[in-house]
Amino acid sequence: MKAIQVEKPGQLNIVELEKPVIEKGDEVIVKIKNVGICGSDVHIYHGSNPFTSYPRVIGHEVSGIVEQVGEAVTSLAPGDLVALEPITYCGECYACRNGQPNVCDSLEVFGVHRDGGMAEYLKADENNWHRVPGNVSEEAAALMEPMTIGAQATYRGEVREGDTVFVIGAGPTGIACLLQAKQRGAKVFISDFNQNRLDYAKSIGADAIIQPNEVDAEEEINRLTNGELANVVIDAVGLPQTFQQAVELASIAGRVVTLGFNEQPSSIPSLLLTKKELKVAGSRLQTHQFPKVIDQVGRGEIDPTQIISQRYSMDQIHDAFELLENNPEAVRKIVLTF
Amino acid sequence: MKAIQVEKPGQLNIVELEKPVIEKGDEVIVKIKNVGICGSDVHIYHGSNPFTSYPRVIGHEVSGIVEQVGEAVTSLAPGDLVALEPITYCGECYACRNGQPNVCDSLEVFGVHRDGGMAEYLKADENNWHRVPGNVSEEAAALMEPMTIGAQATYRGEVREGDTVFVIGAGPTGIACLLQAKQRGAKVFISDFNQNRLDYAKSIGADAIIQPNEVDAEEEINRLTNGELANVVIDAVGLPQTFQQAVELASIAGRVVTLGFNEQPSSIPSLLLTKKELKVAGSRLQTHQFPKVIDQVGRGEIDPTQIISQRYSMDQIHDAFELLENNPEAVRKIVLTF
Repeated sequence: MKAIQVEKPGQLNIVELEKPVIEKGDEVIVKIKNVGICGSDVHIYHGSNPFTSYPRVIGHEVSGIVEQVGEAVTSLAPGDLVALEPITYCGECYACRNGQPNVCDSLEVFGVHRDGGMAEYLKADENNWHRVPGNVSEEAAALMEPMTIGAQATYRGEVREGDTVFVIGAGPTGIACLLQAKQRGAKVFISDFNQNRLDYAKSIGADAIIQPNEVDAEEEINRLTNGELANVVIDAVGLPQTFQQAVELASIAGRVVTLGFNEQPSSIPSLLLTKKELKVAGSRLQTHQFPKVIDQVGRGEIDPTQIISQRYSMDQIHDAFELLENNPEAVRKIVLTF
Repeated sequence: MKAIQVEKPGQLNIVELEKPVIEKGDEVIVKIKNVGICGSDVHIYHGSNPFTSYPRVIGHEVSGIVEQVGEAVTSLAPGDLVALEPITYCGECYACRNGQPNVCDSLEVFGVHRDGGMAEYLKADENNWHRVPGNVSEEAAALMEPMTIGAQATYRGEVREGDTVFVIGAGPTGIACLLQAKQRGAKVFISDFNQNRLDYAKSIGADAIIQPNEVDAEEEINRLTNGELANVVIDAVGLPQTFQQAVELASIAGRVVTLGFNEQPSSIPSLLLTKKELKVAGSRLQTHQFPKVIDQVGRGEIDPTQIISQRYSMDQIHDAFELLENNPEAVRKIVLTF
């Protein structure tokens, strides 16, 4: 079968690999239909993802049709449309015992720690595949995963009905946070330097957009919240200064969520956390969010294909990466077809 | 009546004030029995508490006997032993609506924003007084408040049975956190440079004490947790470096609590919060913790008088402050008798 493999940093090839075969009863082989390209795929290509090793078949935003199931599989049958939940965990460590398998001691992510979905077929255990209702498209099924990132961030931020939420960054993660915060009944403000992204955010429901080239974000959040500041601030950019800004612009009794993976420290005085009695939560990958997001999409409450900006076939992977490299501002989400 | 008043920073007097009188139906006048001295009383004396104004009767760790009740009071009667819940709030702002009246927009703390309990009598609304069971001493009733600070910190840190908890600082707040974490079934490690405080912590149940002059705290937490690090770290010191250390020494899926009021920033990389999916919570005063702590003390599960290191009469207030100024290391908790 054909697969898209990063042989080593900077070298991405379409290679021929063995088609997987069922070896254990709970395994499921899926014929891949669509795969979204994520920033972390680009990091693997650049050699800047600390968790990966090479060579690596990338891709963790994956949909497909069940081709073959092991004899112990009960929830899936050939022909089912499925979305990949791309993490595996031990079930026994402190994180797993406490409901956070997404930071399991032995965590592996498909397309990062182990081979992913940019291939004609992918084998994974039954519990890594979620069946998607028949009214949902294959493209939408592939984009459940980025939507779960927003679901996790709003869950970690305890976004409640009537809350004001400030999302810093209107890239794919920020957009997923926006959509999920709106689902929870919040009023959402979003900032980005890229006006196209802002306009898009506005078009899909942002209550206000903030262009830091034109307005002072702090003054604007103050104005929009009548001086209360934002009940939840989600930093979907991950720069040292955006994390600081998030803590500063959270209201009393507020929550701050960071999805940043920045080694550079932010300057955070404990005074801000204590005086406002904030909760500042990291949000990584997702936990148990797939069923919720699949329900939302199945009921038509969220359309993840809204996020797509370009479509390429698997064979055009070099064109897709070239666009991402040379004109990232023009890309929201690229989806590959297999 | 006599009262202990800070007239202005650096000037503390015993003054003669009007005895309070009932003006509204839900008011209760209490004859004060014991008042604990807290670090924040000392800050008011030094002029370093940003929330106070002068002149100010200090004291918020207060017990007494009900002297007189307004006509609408139903839960208290003259002769009842009571503890003061020393905060008032609006009930309407975002914090109040979301269960955090302790950071109410209009928060007032007795002894800080308004006159407190270092007086022969104190008047407060019915819901600011909690009746204490008859088997509890007047001194213990006065020390419910510092115990609630530990209850709040362990609540904010979601301390669970079987967790490992690292408390940084073995002063009164650290000790309250230790006692409350033990109540929740955790294993507790505590650090302090003051060996007397460490020995005391050990004597009342700390599972391990850490003397940073002798061992590297990080190595020791690693050793004590078999490399997992501490599931909850509570910074009861509040220096920029202790807050940083707290974030560094928290396990995956861990929680960090700061009680610090430090304006100096700590250096916190978002990577640590996201990679370990931490929750970092400020903890200020307390919310709804009085009934729980009074129950614990009533059932004999916690004895807050263990924390007392010196006793003075109200008239000896200058001796008490002199000891706190000149030999703070020798003080855990001073209790005044009225």
